[in-house]
Amino acid sequence: MTSTKTNPGNYFEDFKFGQVIVHPTPRTVSVGDVALYTSLYGTRFAVQSSDAFAKAIGYPQSPLDDLLTFHVVFGKTTPEISLNAIANLGYANCRFLKPVYPGDTLSSTSEVIGLKENSNGETGTVYVRSTGRNQNGEIVLDYVRWVMVRKRDKAAPAPEAIVPNLPPRVDPSELGAAVPPLNTSQYDYALAGSPYRWGDYEVGEKIAHVDGMTLEEAEHQIATRLYQNTAKVHFNQHTEAKGRFGKRIVYGGVVISLARALSFNGLNNAFHLAAINGGRHVSPCFAGDTVYAWSEVLEKVEVPGRTDLGALRTRLVAVKNNDCSDFPLKDADGKYADGVMLDLDTWVLLPR
Amino acid sequence: MTSTKTNPGNYFEDFKFGQVIVHPTPRTVSVGDVALYTSLYGTRFAVQSSDAFAKAIGYPQSPLDDLLTFHVVFGKTTPEISLNAIANLGYANCRFLKPVYPGDTLSSTSEVIGLKENSNGETGTVYVRSTGRNQNGEIVLDYVRWVMVRKRDKAAPAPEAIVPNLPPRVDPSELGAAVPPLNTSQYDYALAGSPYRWGDYEVGEKIAHVDGMTLEEAEHQIATRLYQNTAKVHFNQHTEAKGRFGKRIVYGGVVISLARALSFNGLNNAFHLAAINGGRHVSPCFAGDTVYAWSEVLEKVEVPGRTDLGALRTRLVAVKNNDCSDFPLKDADGKYADGVMLDLDTWVLLPR
Amino acid sequence: MTSTKTNPGNYFEDFKFGQVIVHPTPRTVSVGDVALYTSLYGTRFAVQSSDAFAKAIGYPQSPLDDLLTFHVVFGKTTPEISLNAIANLGYANCRFLKPVYPGDTLSSTSEVIGLKENSNGETGTVYVRSTGRNQNGEIVLDYVRWVMVRKRDKAAPAPEAIVPNLPPRVDPSELGAAVPPLNTSQYDYALAGSPYRWGDYEVGEKIAHVDGMTLEEAEHQIATRLYQNTAKVHFNQHTEAKGRFGKRIVYGGVVISLARALSFNGLNNAFHLAAINGGRHVSPCFAGDTVYAWSEVLEKVEVPGRTDLGALRTRLVAVKNNDCSDFPLKDADGKYADGVMLDLDTWVLLPR
Repeated sequence: MTSTKTNPGNYFEDFKFGQVIVHPTPRTVSVGDVALYTSLYGTRFAVQSSDAFAKAIGYPQSPLDDLLTFHVVFGKTTPEISLNAIANLGYANCRFLKPVYPGDTLSSTSEVIGLKENSNGETGTVYVRSTGRNQNGEIVLDYVRWVMVRKRDKAAPAPEAIVPNLPPRVDPSELGAAVPPLNTSQYDYALAGSPYRWGDYEVGEKIAHVDGMTLEEAEHQIATRLYQNTAKVHFNQHTEAKGRFGKRIVYGGVVISLARALSFNGLNNAFHLAAINGGRHVSPCFAGDTVYAWSEVLEKVEVPGRTDLGALRTRLVAVKNNDCSDFPLKDADGKYADGVMLDLDTWVLLPR
Repeated sequence: MTSTKTNPGNYFEDFKFGQVIVHPTPRTVSVGDVALYTSLYGTRFAVQSSDAFAKAIGYPQSPLDDLLTFHVVFGKTTPEISLNAIANLGYANCRFLKPVYPGDTLSSTSEVIGLKENSNGETGTVYVRSTGRNQNGEIVLDYVRWVMVRKRDKAAPAPEAIVPNLPPRVDPSELGAAVPPLNTSQYDYALAGSPYRWGDYEVGEKIAHVDGMTLEEAEHQIATRLYQNTAKVHFNQHTEAKGRFGKRIVYGGVVISLARALSFNGLNNAFHLAAINGGRHVSPCFAGDTVYAWSEVLEKVEVPGRTDLGALRTRLVAVKNNDCSDFPLKDADGKYADGVMLDLDTWVLLPR
Repeated sequence: MTSTKTNPGNYFEDFKFGQVIVHPTPRTVSVGDVALYTSLYGTRFAVQSSDAFAKAIGYPQSPLDDLLTFHVVFGKTTPEISLNAIANLGYANCRFLKPVYPGDTLSSTSEVIGLKENSNGETGTVYVRSTGRNQNGEIVLDYVRWVMVRKRDKAAPAPEAIVPNLPPRVDPSELGAAVPPLNTSQYDYALAGSPYRWGDYEVGEKIAHVDGMTLEEAEHQIATRLYQNTAKVHFNQHTEAKGRFGKRIVYGGVVISLARALSFNGLNNAFHLAAINGGRHVSPCFAGDTVYAWSEVLEKVEVPGRTDLGALRTRLVAVKNNDCSDFPLKDADGKYADGVMLDLDTWVLLPR
């Protein structure tokens, strides 16, 4: 008697506009997760690394790295959203709304906010807004992503096409919600690793983050399981050997975290990732690739109501096997250059 | 002057019937171990993952994954029991008797409960009951295992053969000791990942757990060291290159944990492993293997005195490089099929 | 507009005698770090493994492994001291001065105590005393190391040569500062894994530590990032492929920690590394190497003012792909034998 109690994942026709999905397995995050996150990416932002530093400027203790929160919330959504996805097409309007501390329990829900069948009749794009909440039901994070999902049955009728209207960027008034009022006089720039504050950066400034990190299979698998992300392409060489690339694909979030950790060298005081305005995984990353990153300052704005910090809108680009001293992005014909893996549009906050 | 203060491990003739061995290195388990366990296996049972979920149903906080407790208790026994073992032959009568929480300190003792020299005069089978206790001396776990151990001296006389009488299964009345009375009305099936409770499963039901995980050398070594398991075959390529397989052998407990974590997909609410009735590592696992698993419900019983939960006796089978959709187990001639690595007879508990 | 806000590392002529460098990124250590440390090296000293054991003898809880503290303090110094180093030449006068517990925040400073340009005019040796402090400003550790650093400009004038006068060994009166008065009657030798105390060891005694551990790329990278050590040679295969060895070099501290963890088998009660008198990384370690270790007792002394414990000065040698049963060290011509990677002169403390 064969059971039907397993989750085969959702197909395009399983998603309905307005549907709200409760994702399984809430997760209490801990200093264990923090240590693993450090060991996997080598991140060095002082606020997240030192309770003493965080307390001095007004936090009750070090908050989790924003991307650790993101990956935990994201990981939960994979069994229902992207198990049958062909591609993770993009992110938008990702806002970090409350700090998360060790001991908090995170859970995720998603709402289907758009659906569009592709002309081939075999796949469609699903837009979801996913929301992470803590144990008190407070929203700590929300973001939109869209994925290309297979249809189970090519003959299934196409739903009405609805494509959400996404803002080009998170409004500056929405930034800073996850940062308490800072006692900036206690912010120690020597300990933080750089004298450069918000006011020292200029629009158009490009920063090659110098270092490169070579990724191993064990590393990205350990990271991705830490987030309870179950997407098969990251873990199963037995099937991926027969797949498109012949090998496992690194979870895109690992590339984001590596790029963000590398960005410390040059953006040392950009201690908080306040928003991801948009982003694309331009090309896949595999074990053995060496990840480099560079940033460009796109905008420099004050945060309404905050005199303690300011926001930089930065493009964060991750590139494989290229030290980024020439800031690779696109070719003359407008296509992404070879090796570019990630193009992420973010807001980061720095003390003023 | 060469020291003789190192531990060369025990040989068959060093074991005496009735002997009690205190194993070194007590170990305080922590949320760090929990995070590592998650990162190594991707386990997703809600009770162990979320303090909030655990508290809602009656635990003071999330207990450790039962197998993390098992591995820590087991790991301590390796220097004295299995350093010179040729094979870990089997497990029986393994009972989880108290929940273990971060901050608890675990230690292990073993009693020799059986001895039988093999007819070749070169090896013998040692049966031990190993017991794990917490810092208050309470038994959290006990189990029987038997291993084939080399003799130091072939001429050493054989001991009287004593083979313990092992029960075919743990009695249902012994299950549930490690679970507080549950407030099942607060058990959130959406967060737990499946609507299926104890009553929804049928004897004979077979569940292919869908996913596969490819194991890397670094992963099994990190896991096995986390348990302070010192068995050489898992760690030393310099000697294993000249050994039976030419490579390191994955600690069997890693396969058990992977299979159990994979079983979440189909047995999502089987949150507690209450007993291992028996089990065998049928064939070795190596780095590079992709581990899949399937389960069969063998028995379905009430737990005396408990109306909150029920027990399923399940066979949990781990197989390499085979997606288990055809439930591989034995060939027509009764031998284990190619690729089968683990055949474990367990009791798991689910809410009613 | 290319930014100049990144850290290119210091060159020889950037260091000035007497200069004090505040290293960035303080780090709160946690039970997560402890779990990772155990999983990476398999260390089994009871005091560091069990809160119950530590409390019984007089600690408030388990202290961190001394080398975990060392690596965290050391790691912070790499961006300013050794980013452009060609070689880490040696250590001396390393003293562990206070116990470190989970929750403590560590930070590092370094003072330049010596400078000597090499005759080739291209490199020079920089001597620094690095100091690790906790959140209360108390010194937990200090040590001297010297590194060979490239000059930026060969034409830069040589500084006055100053070579610090380093003591051949830490004085016994300085040992024990990081150990509270011990209630040795509560020290359980069975749980600690060996009956041998300080008095049982003899000068000249050599101990082959039996076990070997094969290192994987993911393991040493995870370890080295845990310490926020940024030295490029450990992480970047893209550049190292074109480098001296064609591959990444394992952080020497990983070898020290593995050797120390292996030394448990034979020095089970040497629970505290009180000092490193001197040490050299004799040859590099690479992924795939199997690390073995042996020790020799060089001195056996009382610790002034302490009747609870005594000190052994031990030479700790790590060797690759050789089981150390013949205690490899130097060839007939006085050169280090093939495979020797580490020659470390330490003080360890044992109960009396």
